[in-house]
Amino acid sequence: MIPRYSRPEMAEIWSPESRFRIWFEIEAHACDAMAELGVIPKEAAAAIWERGAFEVERIDEIERETKHDVIAFLTNVAEHVGPEARFLHQGMTSSDVLDTCLAVQLMRAADLLLADMDRLLAALKSRAFEFKDTLCVGRSHGIHAEPTTFGLKLAGHYAAFARNRARLEAARTEIATCAISGAVGTFANIDPFVENYVAEKLGLTPEPVSTQVIPRDRHAAFFATLGIIASSIENLATEIRHLQRTEVREAEEYFSPGQKGSSAMPHKRNPVLTENLTGLARMVRSAVVPAMENVALWHERDISHSSVERMIGPDATVTLDFALNRLAGVMEKLLVYPDQMQRNLDRLGGLVNSQRVLLALTQAGVSREDAYSLVQRNAMKVWLEGRDFRKELESDPEVVLDAAALDTCFDPSYHTKRVDQIFERVFNVG
Amino acid sequence: MIPRYSRPEMAEIWSPESRFRIWFEIEAHACDAMAELGVIPKEAAAAIWERGAFEVERIDEIERETKHDVIAFLTNVAEHVGPEARFLHQGMTSSDVLDTCLAVQLMRAADLLLADMDRLLAALKSRAFEFKDTLCVGRSHGIHAEPTTFGLKLAGHYAAFARNRARLEAARTEIATCAISGAVGTFANIDPFVENYVAEKLGLTPEPVSTQVIPRDRHAAFFATLGIIASSIENLATEIRHLQRTEVREAEEYFSPGQKGSSAMPHKRNPVLTENLTGLARMVRSAVVPAMENVALWHERDISHSSVERMIGPDATVTLDFALNRLAGVMEKLLVYPDQMQRNLDRLGGLVNSQRVLLALTQAGVSREDAYSLVQRNAMKVWLEGRDFRKELESDPEVVLDAAALDTCFDPSYHTKRVDQIFERVFNVG
Amino acid sequence: MIPRYSRPEMAEIWSPESRFRIWFEIEAHACDAMAELGVIPKEAAAAIWERGAFEVERIDEIERETKHDVIAFLTNVAEHVGPEARFLHQGMTSSDVLDTCLAVQLMRAADLLLADMDRLLAALKSRAFEFKDTLCVGRSHGIHAEPTTFGLKLAGHYAAFARNRARLEAARTEIATCAISGAVGTFANIDPFVENYVAEKLGLTPEPVSTQVIPRDRHAAFFATLGIIASSIENLATEIRHLQRTEVREAEEYFSPGQKGSSAMPHKRNPVLTENLTGLARMVRSAVVPAMENVALWHERDISHSSVERMIGPDATVTLDFALNRLAGVMEKLLVYPDQMQRNLDRLGGLVNSQRVLLALTQAGVSREDAYSLVQRNAMKVWLEGRDFRKELESDPEVVLDAAALDTCFDPSYHTKRVDQIFERVFNVG
Amino acid sequence: MIPRYSRPEMAEIWSPESRFRIWFEIEAHACDAMAELGVIPKEAAAAIWERGAFEVERIDEIERETKHDVIAFLTNVAEHVGPEARFLHQGMTSSDVLDTCLAVQLMRAADLLLADMDRLLAALKSRAFEFKDTLCVGRSHGIHAEPTTFGLKLAGHYAAFARNRARLEAARTEIATCAISGAVGTFANIDPFVENYVAEKLGLTPEPVSTQVIPRDRHAAFFATLGIIASSIENLATEIRHLQRTEVREAEEYFSPGQKGSSAMPHKRNPVLTENLTGLARMVRSAVVPAMENVALWHERDISHSSVERMIGPDATVTLDFALNRLAGVMEKLLVYPDQMQRNLDRLGGLVNSQRVLLALTQAGVSREDAYSLVQRNAMKVWLEGRDFRKELESDPEVVLDAAALDTCFDPSYHTKRVDQIFERVFNVG
Repeated sequence: MIPRYSRPEMAEIWSPESRFRIWFEIEAHACDAMAELGVIPKEAAAAIWERGAFEVERIDEIERETKHDVIAFLTNVAEHVGPEARFLHQGMTSSDVLDTCLAVQLMRAADLLLADMDRLLAALKSRAFEFKDTLCVGRSHGIHAEPTTFGLKLAGHYAAFARNRARLEAARTEIATCAISGAVGTFANIDPFVENYVAEKLGLTPEPVSTQVIPRDRHAAFFATLGIIASSIENLATEIRHLQRTEVREAEEYFSPGQKGSSAMPHKRNPVLTENLTGLARMVRSAVVPAMENVALWHERDISHSSVERMIGPDATVTLDFALNRLAGVMEKLLVYPDQMQRNLDRLGGLVNSQRVLLALTQAGVSREDAYSLVQRNAMKVWLEGRDFRKELESDPEVVLDAAALDTCFDPSYHTKRVDQIFERVFNVG
Repeated sequence: MIPRYSRPEMAEIWSPESRFRIWFEIEAHACDAMAELGVIPKEAAAAIWERGAFEVERIDEIERETKHDVIAFLTNVAEHVGPEARFLHQGMTSSDVLDTCLAVQLMRAADLLLADMDRLLAALKSRAFEFKDTLCVGRSHGIHAEPTTFGLKLAGHYAAFARNRARLEAARTEIATCAISGAVGTFANIDPFVENYVAEKLGLTPEPVSTQVIPRDRHAAFFATLGIIASSIENLATEIRHLQRTEVREAEEYFSPGQKGSSAMPHKRNPVLTENLTGLARMVRSAVVPAMENVALWHERDISHSSVERMIGPDATVTLDFALNRLAGVMEKLLVYPDQMQRNLDRLGGLVNSQRVLLALTQAGVSREDAYSLVQRNAMKVWLEGRDFRKELESDPEVVLDAAALDTCFDPSYHTKRVDQIFERVFNVG
Repeated sequence: MIPRYSRPEMAEIWSPESRFRIWFEIEAHACDAMAELGVIPKEAAAAIWERGAFEVERIDEIERETKHDVIAFLTNVAEHVGPEARFLHQGMTSSDVLDTCLAVQLMRAADLLLADMDRLLAALKSRAFEFKDTLCVGRSHGIHAEPTTFGLKLAGHYAAFARNRARLEAARTEIATCAISGAVGTFANIDPFVENYVAEKLGLTPEPVSTQVIPRDRHAAFFATLGIIASSIENLATEIRHLQRTEVREAEEYFSPGQKGSSAMPHKRNPVLTENLTGLARMVRSAVVPAMENVALWHERDISHSSVERMIGPDATVTLDFALNRLAGVMEKLLVYPDQMQRNLDRLGGLVNSQRVLLALTQAGVSREDAYSLVQRNAMKVWLEGRDFRKELESDPEVVLDAAALDTCFDPSYHTKRVDQIFERVFNVG
Repeated sequence: MIPRYSRPEMAEIWSPESRFRIWFEIEAHACDAMAELGVIPKEAAAAIWERGAFEVERIDEIERETKHDVIAFLTNVAEHVGPEARFLHQGMTSSDVLDTCLAVQLMRAADLLLADMDRLLAALKSRAFEFKDTLCVGRSHGIHAEPTTFGLKLAGHYAAFARNRARLEAARTEIATCAISGAVGTFANIDPFVENYVAEKLGLTPEPVSTQVIPRDRHAAFFATLGIIASSIENLATEIRHLQRTEVREAEEYFSPGQKGSSAMPHKRNPVLTENLTGLARMVRSAVVPAMENVALWHERDISHSSVERMIGPDATVTLDFALNRLAGVMEKLLVYPDQMQRNLDRLGGLVNSQRVLLALTQAGVSREDAYSLVQRNAMKVWLEGRDFRKELESDPEVVLDAAALDTCFDPSYHTKRVDQIFERVFNVG
């Protein structure tokens, strides 16, 4: 999480103020619940809400002595609340506060990410429909294969992010649990009613069984989901980078007036945003393994997960939030060049229709093996000597296809006839 | 995937025979669909089912020349079927076969893994109830904290694997899609009806939009799920390893007659199964990053994912299948020593009740801060000099608790009173 | 490690036969050393070399009962040697054999990999000199930047693999240690002389301090090195894939007669080898994290590293061996198209000289900022409208450069004048 | 890199001020070199040193418009220098500055880390000699094996960090290169003399062949080395955590007066520093894979590596610097309990001598197999029923060892006789 790749709303979730504010709410709600149970006086609970306050710097100061952040926080709050503060944190353990707070933070982060994905999905959908019928070449192995449309490419990425959105919703549900179960999860000193009460107030569900901590497989699932989303970002970013390369130039990132592509070469317009997204994807993904290594805590908990989460919590969510928005911006403003798409489509002299000729020959009774050889023989002349595929076929006596049959083979509309049907599959669902 | 850590049923899914058999079924079902559409003769489709056959070695032989596995397969099948074989693979591309086959393999692998998890869940549940009320010490940071029960520990692991089971079911659904959409996913040469038909026959759902391939974020999600499950295995394995260490010895892996723990030291009984599981977990997890790196294929596909999947497909599923069964076996036969659990619980001279004393003091009107100092002061004498906690408290005039109050503080049943309630949460759900 | 991506010589290192043969040699050399010390009879040591033998299947059979591989091996050898076999393994522990064996295997694997790298380095050097002066465009961000030569590109990859070779030599030295120090590394039951003796016989150095095992940071360093090499493979593979893509086509993997690029599209010639290498690189890299996770063994050792190494030992070395040879083959036979390189170089209408014009203007007294704007202004017309850069400059009155000055700016030899000097740096060193 | 886990000196290396200062020095030294070559006026070079200055905020402001950091920096410097500023950056490209700056930063970071390691090595050496002869039990699989000494344990960790130090020195050399070779590495617009000149001034070596960038396999090797060091930290941290657990308590992290181990349980003294180190190790390691993914840049460079390095550059070095110092502190102040070590050593009733009995029996003529069974039979009674091993052996008629022989078997000094020799190996080397 560095300012360069941060957006304020997400960064704010991870500020000390936000964290302590959530701690305070957990403690204060817990007091309400305990007051309702009669464990502590109702006036104490009220006093905590009324006079409860904290200062980040004062907490830091106390922590330097006690070396324990929750105790430092409670001590600072007690300075404001007065004697009633002794009812705070009754029967609770630090992790009850810390883990429930992390759940709230990850839940809020997920909400922002879901909104980011909605923006990206809207951009992808809009541009997909804009270019639904814009012919371009489909490429496998970087080699021209057969025609497709630019809208179809975008529909594929839309579908991937729709899946990612669903995954993130599931991950949000997984992570949004509340544990207030005491030192080793037995509720020995606290009634499960408190956990239920706080959970409901914070929009969480109670953790069915906790130790001292919320089990870390939940967090592993959350960060793994972020890693998958990042990988889909890399996928789309890679597509744009390819389309923008000089020899292809079918699309370009928007280049603002005043922008400079290179300090040395004034002619440059580089796909720097999508290259940057490629790097950011690597970073988000790098949180996955540590999150998984955090699962095997010792016995009822050790604290090794904590430093990891203090870093990957902000880093992965802030970076992904930034990346999703950057990608949405790229897609919203992407410059698309249909003419150049057509030029590239024509570049191989008609070879992109080789399969259609193969199929026409087999339909005309030639064996698949012979048809393949026949087509490959003619294709290689086009490939190596730059000739025109249709002319080569016409002059090959073994190619038993008449002009009408060849017309059909070279008709581009043939490739787009199912586009509407695919769009229906993609955009009517989800 | 090495024989040492393989079980035959899972390994069989990944055998060449299985793979080619699935390929054959995809092709033959596709022919049926095309025959129904009138694209190919019904007799041809019938002939393919009747005479269709293949030999692994012959396919390998042909592939050495063509350097293309699907073409080699089709050529070999054609040798058996005869002229009708030219109707095979009409308008399809290799990936239609390969990706749909991989979906079937991963789906079957998931089914075995789900069964494995059921066995493990059953073992965990049974042992959890067996030791529901067996007191043992709960430990945070490896240090004695407060009493819990051994059944509660197991209930926590049960809950983790129940979550993992749900994740795997979701991952299975994600991966179980069928793509028969042609060279770049446009269905130019094949009717979507074929895809739907084959999908239904194989228990898959049609992929809403494919390029040449099924998008790899699905596979990334699948392997990430395996990585999370592996991390939970590591978690439980680590618990057993800790419990078995000489100074703890609260539980032990079953040690069979004739087994030797060490070639040099005949006295040894080592937790080698759970140590092994720790290593296997690392291996399953190592598939996650490559699976994510596979997502960003170039344009409509490149083949970089293929070699990765040829390895992690078998490796991760076979290893996880083995690990889940090994862990189930460990848990089914685990030797548990309640007496030693009690001895360990008593080891700290009653300090495990320090929180209860702290709370009793605050309830009796002492400020939280003072109570903490008071308890810590007495606790440290026990900690450092091995004294008895209760006696220290009794002889400290500032500890304003009478004998009855102290009795309550040192009553172990206090810690188990919610166990039934937690069990209800864990085992009634899921 | 799957047959498809294995070469026999490397696979053989990891066969059960090889492993047991190395075990035997370790034990037998150790007996010689002990005989020299007078700890065991000289006749016993001689008998072991004479009658010592083993059968893989018999060992497996015994292991099924004892669940301990080294004991099973010793038992089987004893069946051949007779009573003198009781002098085998005196004061040694299984890890003495296993870890020293792994050192031998990794050392031998490193030797093969070093030879592989020599083949690759030779290919890169030869092709680099072949195309030392072959002009092509240099690209940053996928966008044409300035001219370079194809030989220079290859020289860069040569230098990377020369560095990798040096790293692998260092890693080989790191891994080539021998530990025969007994159950917890104290040499309580065995004289360090034995370790020194066996080390010398096997080409290893004695491990200065071992626990029960050779410390795993050595192995982590070894596998990390393999991961770096794999990343360099990916780098060169990515370059070839880019050069082969249809719109670029400056180079192509060799396409053998009879080869088929696609089952559906007979015109295809795909860079499948370098795509495959990209995937294999991901797999080799996936061994790095588990190898690092193996370092933190518990106390004097736990066995969690073992299953990891049983897999990544063969997998990473066999895959890298295969990949290095595949890459060497690709480079040896790479089809290179200098004409197409020149065509691509000309594609941007002379823009690749924009920096030279910028510098000429600043030399002529224009401020850097103004010069940049001036050049960018003209460049954008070329970029967007496909005009000729030189003509645009000539017709811009603010461009204060005469014909001679512009001639210099558009002279391609300007870019190649240091190539010999760079080659000298690269190929005279290392 | 978060304040909680940062030390100021390392963090300072990565501050904007430091970065821009290094940029300035690179540019100014390059001007000196160009002045020496006569390419620019000597007065210009002098003016740049004299009047050259920058303000971080002004640079940020300019970058918001130009979207290019190096251009923003140059523009700001030009505001101070005046007209001579047009001679800055002549024939250079941004990466010349950025990559050389990163090399300087990583080199300086390496220097701090080397000093950190020296502190840690000194602590380990001092404590190793302090406890050279302090008996404790060696454990394999967490199970008591045979006696060793606490000093020997520490000597092993010392050796690991000595290896790590050597690795880091090699990584420092790898990373400390200077590239000033222009837009695509051809030196077209700049004389290699400039690169040599700047390299020497900054303590770097010239990069033999660069593209636009310094090749990223160097950085991958650097971060991989940090990952290995982190893994060794985890290894030692894990040892301390184990030794401190309640049932073992052979050593403890220093617990300062006023420290609180738990907000709920006043009796707790937790190994939180070493648990924290375990988590920090995961984070440092998480930089390794992205650094390796950075190697395969496209053609002469893409910028995907940049965002990764902006994060892992500071994060991995700052975190490792913090971790090494924290670990050094832990080791310097570690509380060690030799009495408890002896108590634990005695805990298994003498079983830790089982191998010696086995060997004595084989020396007395019993076959290895029979001796093993004999010892195991007696050992299991001790193991399961808590008896005394020596007494069991004495009462077993098949154990053909007299009292003197048994005395030898149970003599602890037997296990420490090679300690001095091992210490000599470890501490005289390196």
